[in-house]
Amino acid sequence: MEKTMDKIVSLAKARGFVYPGSEIYGGLANTWDYGNLGVELKNNVKRAWWKKFIQENPYNVGVDCAILMNPQTWVASGHLGGFSDPLMDCKECHERFRADKIIEDYAQEHNIDLGGSVDGWSQEQMMQFIEDNQVPCPTCGKHNFTEIRQFNLMFKTFQGVTEDAKNTVYLRPETAQGIFVNFKNVQRTSRKKIPFGIGQIGKSFRNEITPGNFTFRTREFEQMELEFFCEPDTDLEWFAYWKQFCIDWLQTLGIKPEEMRVRDHEKEELSFYSKATTDIEFLFPFGWGELWGIADRTDYDLSRHAEVSGQDLSYFDDSKNEKYIPYVVEPSLGADRVVLAFLCAAYDEEELEGGDVRTVLHFHPALAPVKIGILPLSKKLNEGAEKIYTQLCKKYNCEFDDRGNIGKRYRRQDEIGTPFCVTYDFESETDGCVTVRFRDSMEQERVAIADLDAYFAEKLDF
Amino acid sequence: MEKTMDKIVSLAKARGFVYPGSEIYGGLANTWDYGNLGVELKNNVKRAWWKKFIQENPYNVGVDCAILMNPQTWVASGHLGGFSDPLMDCKECHERFRADKIIEDYAQEHNIDLGGSVDGWSQEQMMQFIEDNQVPCPTCGKHNFTEIRQFNLMFKTFQGVTEDAKNTVYLRPETAQGIFVNFKNVQRTSRKKIPFGIGQIGKSFRNEITPGNFTFRTREFEQMELEFFCEPDTDLEWFAYWKQFCIDWLQTLGIKPEEMRVRDHEKEELSFYSKATTDIEFLFPFGWGELWGIADRTDYDLSRHAEVSGQDLSYFDDSKNEKYIPYVVEPSLGADRVVLAFLCAAYDEEELEGGDVRTVLHFHPALAPVKIGILPLSKKLNEGAEKIYTQLCKKYNCEFDDRGNIGKRYRRQDEIGTPFCVTYDFESETDGCVTVRFRDSMEQERVAIADLDAYFAEKLDF
Repeated sequence: MEKTMDKIVSLAKARGFVYPGSEIYGGLANTWDYGNLGVELKNNVKRAWWKKFIQENPYNVGVDCAILMNPQTWVASGHLGGFSDPLMDCKECHERFRADKIIEDYAQEHNIDLGGSVDGWSQEQMMQFIEDNQVPCPTCGKHNFTEIRQFNLMFKTFQGVTEDAKNTVYLRPETAQGIFVNFKNVQRTSRKKIPFGIGQIGKSFRNEITPGNFTFRTREFEQMELEFFCEPDTDLEWFAYWKQFCIDWLQTLGIKPEEMRVRDHEKEELSFYSKATTDIEFLFPFGWGELWGIADRTDYDLSRHAEVSGQDLSYFDDSKNEKYIPYVVEPSLGADRVVLAFLCAAYDEEELEGGDVRTVLHFHPALAPVKIGILPLSKKLNEGAEKIYTQLCKKYNCEFDDRGNIGKRYRRQDEIGTPFCVTYDFESETDGCVTVRFRDSMEQERVAIADLDAYFAEKLDF
Repeated sequence: MEKTMDKIVSLAKARGFVYPGSEIYGGLANTWDYGNLGVELKNNVKRAWWKKFIQENPYNVGVDCAILMNPQTWVASGHLGGFSDPLMDCKECHERFRADKIIEDYAQEHNIDLGGSVDGWSQEQMMQFIEDNQVPCPTCGKHNFTEIRQFNLMFKTFQGVTEDAKNTVYLRPETAQGIFVNFKNVQRTSRKKIPFGIGQIGKSFRNEITPGNFTFRTREFEQMELEFFCEPDTDLEWFAYWKQFCIDWLQTLGIKPEEMRVRDHEKEELSFYSKATTDIEFLFPFGWGELWGIADRTDYDLSRHAEVSGQDLSYFDDSKNEKYIPYVVEPSLGADRVVLAFLCAAYDEEELEGGDVRTVLHFHPALAPVKIGILPLSKKLNEGAEKIYTQLCKKYNCEFDDRGNIGKRYRRQDEIGTPFCVTYDFESETDGCVTVRFRDSMEQERVAIADLDAYFAEKLDF
């Protein structure tokens, strides 16, 4: 079977994972809403991250910072100065484009070797290339462009009653800076010593020119970021530690090694302050896409904030009797992207004996939106089955379904990725047992109702 | 002892519950960041809501919608037209005020009976009162005001590359509308029948003129909203059901009946579309403040969206063979407010035998940021204690502390509300037991290490 985005998008909409945002109003470009199953899947992904990166990890603690921050933050981080796309308009058809995209597309089409990415090019270099090659407008084919202007990707708004510069604030373009500005606060209140990390899950906003690929690149998105603070010269060791930690996390939750690749950045690709950067990419139906960026950011961020704020952001290491600005390793993960990756990885169409095809989502049990489907074989058995539902839903998100024949109900649970179904039948009334049916193997086993709590505690342990 | 906001704010900052936002840059008015303990407390509150309102409740499912919505949403909801404050400036000192606030303060100071709230007054009525009474400017004392202008409370931003009306979008002022616009989607994908509810937790933004009281009223805030859809004429029964459900939730989690009050709105106070509204208020150190608004909104919201979108938002009730627009009961809770309420309710200073005072946060175990403190009596015992930490932190957020004498460590855990401490002592090495110490009673009991999992599973069941 072919795994296509069309199939996944349509399953997502049909079964309540993801709907187009504001759909009854014709949508709002590039916004998406998580439905009754999507919200559970996304929450499970966030919990699995928090559990392994914060709760169980002896080094790390969490924070939850405001989306609106003092604009000086973006001066220090460089977002106010440099976080922009080079845009130009076609004077003939008035379409607007990203200059770097036009160049890359043109080069690819004409087999021109650009010697790497356009990312590092100056505005002049881009204009020069477009002139030299008489690059045409992708829409109307003419060659008559405006100058390139830098377009800042931060969403701007106004806090307070007047819409002027004094009241301008920005929606954060990343969660990382909330962690950096609180480095001292968290170190003090958590009494952590270096090395330690601070994690955060939250929304960020980027006014992308070319969002797309379903929930892969959206203007409003959620991040799960860790900033790990360590002693200078131990950063490359920690970089290796966190890189492996992230790979393990994905694979434990069901991403197969052949669906992912780890791409270390070449020296020329690195930001000037970074000693090492790696992307963990996933093979989506539309191609490879970045999930996780892991970067050794040295002492750049804390130094910049110290400089702009005038505050002392150094750390006194009492084991060495030495003061220093900690180095930072940053594993930064897009929550919406990794949710989409788990959805794509889970999707399967299986041919069954007899030729029927079932659609099944092979989610890791920790991620499955519904853990247990509770199915009375007949509506006459609802009372007994409801008791089990009431008992199990105290621990797990469960679904009660008494509609349609049992085979159809199994298919329905397969299609939303429910790992276990509990079928309550006429014998259950007398023998006090139920049939547990497994999504992946479709095998069944008989379990005493009195043992179900312990049975699922073991099966659903993560 | 006197429970004051000063004490609570300073504990919150000192122990990592809440810091001022962007603090190293002098802050950003009225923004707050949750620290290493605050984020755990807030997450626990959100989980407790989700568990009781969504996971365990047979009627309800959840969603997670985008913050940015199609602006037609705010036409339908009335936020674009009517969601505004009446503002005026003093022409002498150029301060800006809310006209209704000035009137209320003036009336209170001069014992003038306004016969209710100023909320329903027209702009003309307010101007008239200010003129008739020659109300002075609260800052400079002169009486020379501009006209009243309506100031919309929605934060405005621009999606896309040009800052014009076509690209104007708003940060949602409430999570409720994301639910209404998805009513049909969720009903279809969840296969729920009326009555059923849809819940959502998420950030909302209101450009308040007078935010304040720590995290009680902030411009950026988080909501936990449920929209419960039912048959017309069953709405008042469901209103009573959800009102009691909310009261029970708060009290189960430790809010005492004498700290809260339930205020039913008078007929004159109700919005024109509402049949009943109740506020659940908590007694903060600064006075009574609203936590929960529970409103019978009739079919107003779905009807408005149907009208503005042109979509059919009615429901076909196959048990009655009848089509209708469902009625809605909305319990709407502020997450930051209720977190603050739990913090205030938990705060206590207790005089101990011998005259010492301990500060203690009596959090319900389900809300406590740290569930178990693991304390080796001596650093020589770290290895055994660490094993217990590693085992327990797979289930619960735990803290390992080997610094300072054991009495001080108990005080530290009391002050952050940790319900249980496990002390590993020299005997533990031979008898395989530890001492469990209870935060509230300060009593201790000896428990076998092998039994700890089951012991805490029972103690921490929620």
